[in-house]
Amino acid sequence: MQRYFLTAETTPVLGATFTLTGDSVHHWLKVMRAQPGDQAEFVTTSQAVAIGELVRAEGQAAKVKVLSLTTPQVELPVPVVIACGVSKGDKTEQIVQRGTELGAAEFVFFDSQYAVAKWAPNKRERKLARLAKIAQSAAEQSHRTIVPTVSYQPNLTSLITQVDYTAGVVAWEESAKQGESSQLVRTLRQLEDGQRLLAIFGPEGGLTAAEVADLQTAGIQAAGLGPRIMRAETAPLYLLSAVSFWRELV
Amino acid sequence: MQRYFLTAETTPVLGATFTLTGDSVHHWLKVMRAQPGDQAEFVTTSQAVAIGELVRAEGQAAKVKVLSLTTPQVELPVPVVIACGVSKGDKTEQIVQRGTELGAAEFVFFDSQYAVAKWAPNKRERKLARLAKIAQSAAEQSHRTIVPTVSYQPNLTSLITQVDYTAGVVAWEESAKQGESSQLVRTLRQLEDGQRLLAIFGPEGGLTAAEVADLQTAGIQAAGLGPRIMRAETAPLYLLSAVSFWRELV
Repeated sequence: MQRYFLTAETTPVLGATFTLTGDSVHHWLKVMRAQPGDQAEFVTTSQAVAIGELVRAEGQAAKVKVLSLTTPQVELPVPVVIACGVSKGDKTEQIVQRGTELGAAEFVFFDSQYAVAKWAPNKRERKLARLAKIAQSAAEQSHRTIVPTVSYQPNLTSLITQVDYTAGVVAWEESAKQGESSQLVRTLRQLEDGQRLLAIFGPEGGLTAAEVADLQTAGIQAAGLGPRIMRAETAPLYLLSAVSFWRELV
Repeated sequence: MQRYFLTAETTPVLGATFTLTGDSVHHWLKVMRAQPGDQAEFVTTSQAVAIGELVRAEGQAAKVKVLSLTTPQVELPVPVVIACGVSKGDKTEQIVQRGTELGAAEFVFFDSQYAVAKWAPNKRERKLARLAKIAQSAAEQSHRTIVPTVSYQPNLTSLITQVDYTAGVVAWEESAKQGESSQLVRTLRQLEDGQRLLAIFGPEGGLTAAEVADLQTAGIQAAGLGPRIMRAETAPLYLLSAVSFWRELV
C-alpha cells in the first residue's frame, strides 16, 4: 500500500476524516490515480500509522477517513547517524537511499582532507534538497515511520560538535588491518535503547591518520568492520545491518 | 596495491620467480603501466597471497619475483551462497558487486513465478560471464582471496538440489511482518566454521507463498531480516553483513 508522511499540523483520529495537503495529494490523486474508496497509509510526525480511505478530492487537497491507527515499531532501537565524507558521482545518493532502507536516523555529509569531490557552496542546498527527497521516497517504500534528515558539515570538528550522539565510532581501514574486531560490539553493548550512535566513514580517499587521531581525542572509537575492504558507499550499509541484527534479531 | 588472481597452474614460491599469463598481464603492464621493480599482489587458488615484483615483460607474459607469501584470513568463516530471483536492470550486477565486497562465496540466480525479468536462454551465458567479471573485479578491490562463482538455476527445485549447503534460510517479508526475529540467529548458531549457508531471496515481485512452503518442506527456514521492508538488491547485503558481524566481530 502506498505510504505518505504527514506534516505536524495533521493529526488523524480513528473514525474521523482529515484533510491531506501538499505533494502527497498530487502523487496519490494524479500519479497513483486514487479514486474514492481507495486506501493508503499515512504516517504522523509522532510515528503513528493511519490507514486512510479517500472520501473525495477537493482541489489541491483530499478528504481522508481514518480506518485504523497503529504505532508499529519499525525504527532501530539505537538511532544511527551516518556521517560520510562527500563522495563523487551518485555515491551520496546511494548511501541515502540504501541507508534509509536499512534504518538510518540521520545522514550528515562532511568535507575532509582526502575528499575527491567537493560540494560547491552554491550547489549545496540543491544537493541536500535532492538527498532529502531520496530519503523521503526510500522511507515511504521501506515502511519507515520517520524520514531521516540529511545535512552538511564543513569539517569533522563541526560534525562532532553539531551532531547529537551518545557514542561514536569511526570506520578505519587500519583498524581492520590490525585485526581490530571488537570495538563496534563494545560500543553497541554500551548503548541503551534511544541513545544515538554516530558512525563516521571517510570519503573514497579515506580519512588521514591525523583526522582519525583528532576524532579519537574527542572520544570517537576507531572500529574495524571485518577483514575485507569495503568501498565508501558499502561500509555504512554494513554498519546499519550489524546494528539491526544485534539489536533487533539477536 | 593492485591484486590479481592466479590460475591453478601458477604456484608462487618465496624468493623464486613465476610466469604470469592471461588477462592480468595485459592489465598490469598496459593499463597500470607497471615497470620492472613495481609490485602487485597475486592470489593463488589455495588462497595464499604473494607480493610479487615485476622482473621483466616477455611478450604476452611477465616474469614475477615472489617477495613475500602469506595466507591472510579474510573469508567469512561460514561461506554464504546468495541465491536471488532474476531481477531487472542492473540489480543483479549490484548484488554481485556489493555482495562480493561483503564476502559472499557464491551467487546463484534463479527463475521464479513472480519474476519481473527473465534471462533469455541465448543471453544467459553472456550475462553470467559479465557477472563473473564483476565478481572478479570486486574480489580484487576488496582484497578477497577467492573469486565468488556466479551461476544460474531454472527454478527453486534445481537450486536446492544443485547447490552445496549445510543449512538454508529464505528471506520472507511475511516472517518479518509477523515479528519473526530469531530464525537467522538460530541458523547461524547451528553452523560450524566451514559449513555453508544458503540464503534465498525473491525477485522484486517476491516469492509466492507456495514457493516458500516448498522450500520449508525441503528444510529451508523462513527468516525475517528486521522490521523494515528492503528492496530485492538490499536484503542480501543485510544478510552478509549480519553473518560477518556475528562470526567475525562478536
